[in-house]
Amino acid sequence: MIRSGTGNLDHSVVFAERSKRKAGISAFQFSGRSVENDEIISLNFGLPDESLFQIPNLQEACMRALHADHVKALQYGGATGTRRLPNFIAARFARQWGTSAEHGAVLVTNGSSQALDLIGRLFLDPGDEVWMEEPTYFGAIHIFTLNGATLRGFPIDHDGLITDAVEEDLIHRKNSNAPMPKLLYTIPNYHNPTGLTMSGPRREHLARLAREYGFYIVEDDAYGELGFSGAVSPPIRTMAPENTLYVSTFSKTIAPGFRLGSVIAPEQIIQGLQSMKAEGGTGGLIQEMMANLLESMDYDHHVRSIAAMYHARCDAMIRAMASCMPEGCSWTMPKGGFFVWATLPEHVETAALWSCALRHGVSFVGGQPFYVSESGANRMRLSFSYYPPDQIEEGIFRLGSAVKAYLSDASRENAG
Amino acid sequence: MIRSGTGNLDHSVVFAERSKRKAGISAFQFSGRSVENDEIISLNFGLPDESLFQIPNLQEACMRALHADHVKALQYGGATGTRRLPNFIAARFARQWGTSAEHGAVLVTNGSSQALDLIGRLFLDPGDEVWMEEPTYFGAIHIFTLNGATLRGFPIDHDGLITDAVEEDLIHRKNSNAPMPKLLYTIPNYHNPTGLTMSGPRREHLARLAREYGFYIVEDDAYGELGFSGAVSPPIRTMAPENTLYVSTFSKTIAPGFRLGSVIAPEQIIQGLQSMKAEGGTGGLIQEMMANLLESMDYDHHVRSIAAMYHARCDAMIRAMASCMPEGCSWTMPKGGFFVWATLPEHVETAALWSCALRHGVSFVGGQPFYVSESGANRMRLSFSYYPPDQIEEGIFRLGSAVKAYLSDASRENAG
Repeated sequence: MIRSGTGNLDHSVVFAERSKRKAGISAFQFSGRSVENDEIISLNFGLPDESLFQIPNLQEACMRALHADHVKALQYGGATGTRRLPNFIAARFARQWGTSAEHGAVLVTNGSSQALDLIGRLFLDPGDEVWMEEPTYFGAIHIFTLNGATLRGFPIDHDGLITDAVEEDLIHRKNSNAPMPKLLYTIPNYHNPTGLTMSGPRREHLARLAREYGFYIVEDDAYGELGFSGAVSPPIRTMAPENTLYVSTFSKTIAPGFRLGSVIAPEQIIQGLQSMKAEGGTGGLIQEMMANLLESMDYDHHVRSIAAMYHARCDAMIRAMASCMPEGCSWTMPKGGFFVWATLPEHVETAALWSCALRHGVSFVGGQPFYVSESGANRMRLSFSYYPPDQIEEGIFRLGSAVKAYLSDASRENAG
Repeated sequence: MIRSGTGNLDHSVVFAERSKRKAGISAFQFSGRSVENDEIISLNFGLPDESLFQIPNLQEACMRALHADHVKALQYGGATGTRRLPNFIAARFARQWGTSAEHGAVLVTNGSSQALDLIGRLFLDPGDEVWMEEPTYFGAIHIFTLNGATLRGFPIDHDGLITDAVEEDLIHRKNSNAPMPKLLYTIPNYHNPTGLTMSGPRREHLARLAREYGFYIVEDDAYGELGFSGAVSPPIRTMAPENTLYVSTFSKTIAPGFRLGSVIAPEQIIQGLQSMKAEGGTGGLIQEMMANLLESMDYDHHVRSIAAMYHARCDAMIRAMASCMPEGCSWTMPKGGFFVWATLPEHVETAALWSCALRHGVSFVGGQPFYVSESGANRMRLSFSYYPPDQIEEGIFRLGSAVKAYLSDASRENAG
């Protein structure tokens, strides 16, 4: 062990190489950091609104999970023994999409983050490639990098992932006998961070490519229940079931603090994922509580009403941006989810803008962490999930002022 | 993707190499499997007795965690925001062992299994060595193998790990410029599976070796609170704080279904472990419930009373073994924990004995999964944790009968 100049030991000299990789930004670094300061409107982190956490039903759901008859939830094996939550998840997917409930198997995980981690662990040898939309969820960049993958980003437009670009690369790899990607990670509905949605034809195209070229699609549908209008394209998993791992979470629809997510995939893959778990299974007690809660409520009605609430907030943000953002800025118009993605004039670096915005009383997430390459410097992600409409409007007003101030400082610098 | 003879796809051809390693037996494979059959007395899995799960206090603890004031537990960042559980853990360790509460930092994990997994992930490059007692907890074999380690086992006697053997190997490595181990994993109190305890002098010796040779001790104290008599040696962490990661869990003292464990280690290492987590942090809700529960009870009194109960069960097992096991068998006499470790005559293979035992209405865990090398064929682990004393006695009676029947079949085969 090596002692630093201060005499403190530096343990990191013996840490594994994987700990030293630039690995995206671990999600926890954003956990409500700026939110503690009531004076800042923190449009940075995608926190669901706490008023939506079903507190009355939750208390009863917990009580019932602790009733003597359900003591098995407290025992080892509770997670594999009690199948209520995976059965709920499987049945709901089958009902929504017209598939058979036995079509694939379900694994409950410690949030969708653990799902991605298990997938990385099961599939990725060092150097294996994971292809992704770019920009994408920084947590996925972190997790796949931790698992030794080489990441490759592909562009998005208003129909989502540009699957022609993916196909072009696949053809090139095949023709030059170069390695194929192992996984392709996508957030097809109300994408994090862009808010965009992958069209039906693009999904069909991606499904065909996966079957033809033998890679696996990791379909992250964290926001899928939070669409603002009726029409939703079916999951890619319904189009390529043998090639698709469908990942979901209860963090946005119920509450993040349960830390419960799931994977639906072919049975053999689910068994493989289970064997990659270090712990025997996701906690039995919290699963029983969630199962009780879901069965005690009209979950369809619940997600529709919270989606309507987020819809109103998104509308407030879009209207305010049209009103407050200076010329040269543009932004996406999401049809669901939590996020609007804004593009500022090319010379603006949102990382540098950040402190100016803080002085104006608003924060956001600059674009760079969402990219595999080093671009995204003039982009930002804005969350409409946490605040009511009036505070969102105020936050965008402050952001507009900050951007204008930043731009006019920049012109003065350029001029003088 | 390759189709098997039945026409089903074989996805495993693209699974990573790590998924194919002989990796010990994942803990979940033992999750109460035989316990479902009421006619078998399952002395195999180390399940705590369910009558001990503090149900009345738990209901109230959950209720309070869901009260509106505590809604932060349901939000992202709950796990890092609410410090009550890590603070409880740090304060208790400091009080028990006379150290300063700021002495090292605490990370709450999804059970001690996740703690071991994060440690493996942070420290282990492919081929790095983890040294261990042999036999040892099969879950640790699984986890460190998953993380790419080469495992090396060292013998145990009635004072625990034979640290002279460890030192001899370290000297040899140093003299021949061969690589040093990165980690040494030990269960010093009421060891799983042998029930043995590492003496004070052996702990001091191991601490000195770690400091001198620069490896890290992973001290797994899952059973540390469950000693049958007063005198306990201090944790190795008190002797080599810069070199020791102290791992613990609430699975044996409260209930496994919470899935809550912890690591106490130098601050820099705790930060490193945190960054290896795929999910932002262990679920906030379940942590709040546990913190409420622990603060609402006299936890010291609680662990003393459950230890007394396990003491009575251990005594019943030992008495019954003295009475029922045939000549040529021996066993350990644990001073705490959940397990007795039995050695049968050398020609007996406990894996082959297993079906004979089932026919007699009793099960156990054969020795082999606990070994890094392929030995242990004539050993078995017997848990006294799950059943009341009378059923333990009946179980051992059945086991004795099974062993006698097996031995007499074996002699007949040898004779004829």
